[in-house]
Amino acid sequence: MKQTEHILIIGAGLVGSLLAVYLRKRGYRVSVYERRADMRKEQMSAGRSINLALSDRGIRALREVGLMDQIDPIAIPMHGRQMHPIQGDEVYQPYGKSGQFINAVSRGLLNQTLLDAAEEAGAVIHFQHKCLHVDLAHNQVQFETRDGSVLRVQADRIIASDGAFSSGRLSHQLQHNRFQFQQYYIDYGYKELHIPPTAQGDYALAKHALHIWPRGNYMMIALPNTDGSFTCTLFFPFEGTPSFASLQSHEDVLTFFQTQFPDAVPWMPTLVEDFFTNPTSSLVTIKCAPWTRGDRFALIGDAAHAIVPFFGQGMNCGFEDCAVLNQFLDQHEDDWSKALAEYDALRKPDGDAIAELALNNFVEMRDRVADPAFLLQKKIEAWFAEKHPTKWIPAYAQVTFSPQIRYSEALRNGQRQERIMQQIMQLPEIESQWQTEVIEQRMLELLETIPA
Amino acid sequence: MKQTEHILIIGAGLVGSLLAVYLRKRGYRVSVYERRADMRKEQMSAGRSINLALSDRGIRALREVGLMDQIDPIAIPMHGRQMHPIQGDEVYQPYGKSGQFINAVSRGLLNQTLLDAAEEAGAVIHFQHKCLHVDLAHNQVQFETRDGSVLRVQADRIIASDGAFSSGRLSHQLQHNRFQFQQYYIDYGYKELHIPPTAQGDYALAKHALHIWPRGNYMMIALPNTDGSFTCTLFFPFEGTPSFASLQSHEDVLTFFQTQFPDAVPWMPTLVEDFFTNPTSSLVTIKCAPWTRGDRFALIGDAAHAIVPFFGQGMNCGFEDCAVLNQFLDQHEDDWSKALAEYDALRKPDGDAIAELALNNFVEMRDRVADPAFLLQKKIEAWFAEKHPTKWIPAYAQVTFSPQIRYSEALRNGQRQERIMQQIMQLPEIESQWQTEVIEQRMLELLETIPA
Repeated sequence: MKQTEHILIIGAGLVGSLLAVYLRKRGYRVSVYERRADMRKEQMSAGRSINLALSDRGIRALREVGLMDQIDPIAIPMHGRQMHPIQGDEVYQPYGKSGQFINAVSRGLLNQTLLDAAEEAGAVIHFQHKCLHVDLAHNQVQFETRDGSVLRVQADRIIASDGAFSSGRLSHQLQHNRFQFQQYYIDYGYKELHIPPTAQGDYALAKHALHIWPRGNYMMIALPNTDGSFTCTLFFPFEGTPSFASLQSHEDVLTFFQTQFPDAVPWMPTLVEDFFTNPTSSLVTIKCAPWTRGDRFALIGDAAHAIVPFFGQGMNCGFEDCAVLNQFLDQHEDDWSKALAEYDALRKPDGDAIAELALNNFVEMRDRVADPAFLLQKKIEAWFAEKHPTKWIPAYAQVTFSPQIRYSEALRNGQRQERIMQQIMQLPEIESQWQTEVIEQRMLELLETIPA
Repeated sequence: MKQTEHILIIGAGLVGSLLAVYLRKRGYRVSVYERRADMRKEQMSAGRSINLALSDRGIRALREVGLMDQIDPIAIPMHGRQMHPIQGDEVYQPYGKSGQFINAVSRGLLNQTLLDAAEEAGAVIHFQHKCLHVDLAHNQVQFETRDGSVLRVQADRIIASDGAFSSGRLSHQLQHNRFQFQQYYIDYGYKELHIPPTAQGDYALAKHALHIWPRGNYMMIALPNTDGSFTCTLFFPFEGTPSFASLQSHEDVLTFFQTQFPDAVPWMPTLVEDFFTNPTSSLVTIKCAPWTRGDRFALIGDAAHAIVPFFGQGMNCGFEDCAVLNQFLDQHEDDWSKALAEYDALRKPDGDAIAELALNNFVEMRDRVADPAFLLQKKIEAWFAEKHPTKWIPAYAQVTFSPQIRYSEALRNGQRQERIMQQIMQLPEIESQWQTEVIEQRMLELLETIPA
């Protein structure tokens, strides 16, 4: 029966392509409609691709449909953060325990791999089909095709994985009686910059780290690419001084970078050109509800929950959505009514939680990672976590390396840990006394007394 | 110079009509485009008009352009809340000090009065013109006219006062780079019901009160009309038991009302018919930013800040918007760039504050007004306020009777009073000891020590 069902996916981005693989493996007829041209054939537009950090949640979802073998070769493990102060030595902070790492992957390469995988699994992908409207009453989607004509496609179920500015979501919103919706922009934009390989063809910076230049109210990061280059991203206020608005001339940019990122500038030969050529992109958080409509329509990935990139979880969360939906289809033997209801109920609070965690991490990355008290706190947490690994999983590790913990649990656990650490950090002479049994006992006590 | 400027207002509702009067008085050429037909000539669609509570902020804005003489005859003073328990005596709670009251007005009559006033002031109102799109780059608005054709109108400035689902705001949102937007529905809907005059032509309930039947997680209210009738509104969950979803048959409705509102049912001869004929409407809060665009475009009223009706401030806030905008135009001698910037900066936090106050008041009205501890708290506050009128203005009075206090201040002041009262209510034997010098002194102390 289900083999004859036609499932239409809007958007052949990362999540749409992975979802197509999942649904083909369940036996459905799957067609995917993508607004852009086939990126495997056309030149990609450069300059808006924050490198992605693939971590355990995403890996688990990819592994479940056997895709990690194709992706391993394009993933570069990053074992920690390498902090670049204006002056003085770089500081290295491991992300987790030995063996815990995240992976830099190029959005373009990963998407191409997933498009191949979706087609190999038997999905049909239609490029240059722009979604105009979803008629939810009649299960029909209207597309504008490459010649400008309008195509109407009928499907048994429609899933919108068309990103933060989802056209599918807009149709759902307009046809829904009481759609909860929020779009929230932070006052920061981002711009992609570039560090090429050295003259010798080597990586200019340590390869297996995520590099951060934290500067109080802004920051630059750099992630390695397989070709020896790094993709840098400047997260920077739109207004004020300094800001995208305040850096107007070539000289402004060069002076600013030489003052603020002196160790990076020598590795950035195209800095000024990149700065003025590449677009300044904005950073939006989207929250909405419901994500589903009966047994016929669902939002997934950024279309359901766009988040800021500061926890490196946007893609991982979207991939996990696919695995969760698949798990409920398993559990309910492809009863979509039950599966979509459970998917919505389980994932919506997790989407809200990772959105909050990502906004919080922005403050942490740009600001607190340069604060000695914060670094000490993280050291104490890591020390205690090593002694009591079942009692204390650092918040970052819960989100990044513990896919068995839901985002919403990780948020709550992290808030509780923060309350405990606030008390610990106020203890007298904590700077010199932290590695003692007294502190260990105090933390164990607080774990007993501070409610979860 | 400014007399030749053409200002286009989208929406001839309450706020658009009043704004037209204000801007005509400044000397501008004003045209107003309204989606609906002229309500002074056509039959109004019934059943979705919560009666409005006109209070001091709205009155001040109306008085400033000399309109209160026309409105006084259609306004019925309500001096307090009349609470109707399921069993036992009604409880009367004055809104404020003697002489402080709010006014029941029919939305339809008020709007008709304001349409007349706008035309008398020289504004031209075009009915049956539905706004399709605002082209903000070219100061042009597209309308669909009554014959279905598209009309393009050029203006020097465009102000959207077209309500919660503003078409002008949608154009602004789509043409704005980083528009902050939130629409939030509560899980409650409302339905209009009716209490006609008695057989003798009298008011069935006390005329000069706002009647409330608080029932924990839902409530009914009734406001007097000039013809001797009351307009009732049931605020009720969409789902659950009881809810709009659970009352399916005529018998369900009658049994429910007879059990929950036994004193009202005898006065509601068309109850069941009204319940099934009148629509169930939803309750949305809209927050967005910015409200303005350069010196050419602004949102005002519900288009900028739709709120739930539980503080009776939606219209009053919109009228106050008009007065504030006018005041900044005075101050900056019709420099719209400066005036709109100040309007946006001042009113946006006030819009957010009244939205929050209105949501909080929902909980208070449906639930806390039936709680003896809450009623005692309000009594203590009133007693203390009478002794120290400059030190303690009750939160409700700040919002309703104190237009000199901004909504955002009223919210902060109210939160502080709540912190103080939480301490007072925990004092031993407060029930019997409240009217004492000890309590008075304790409140004075807390006012000194609890920060504003």
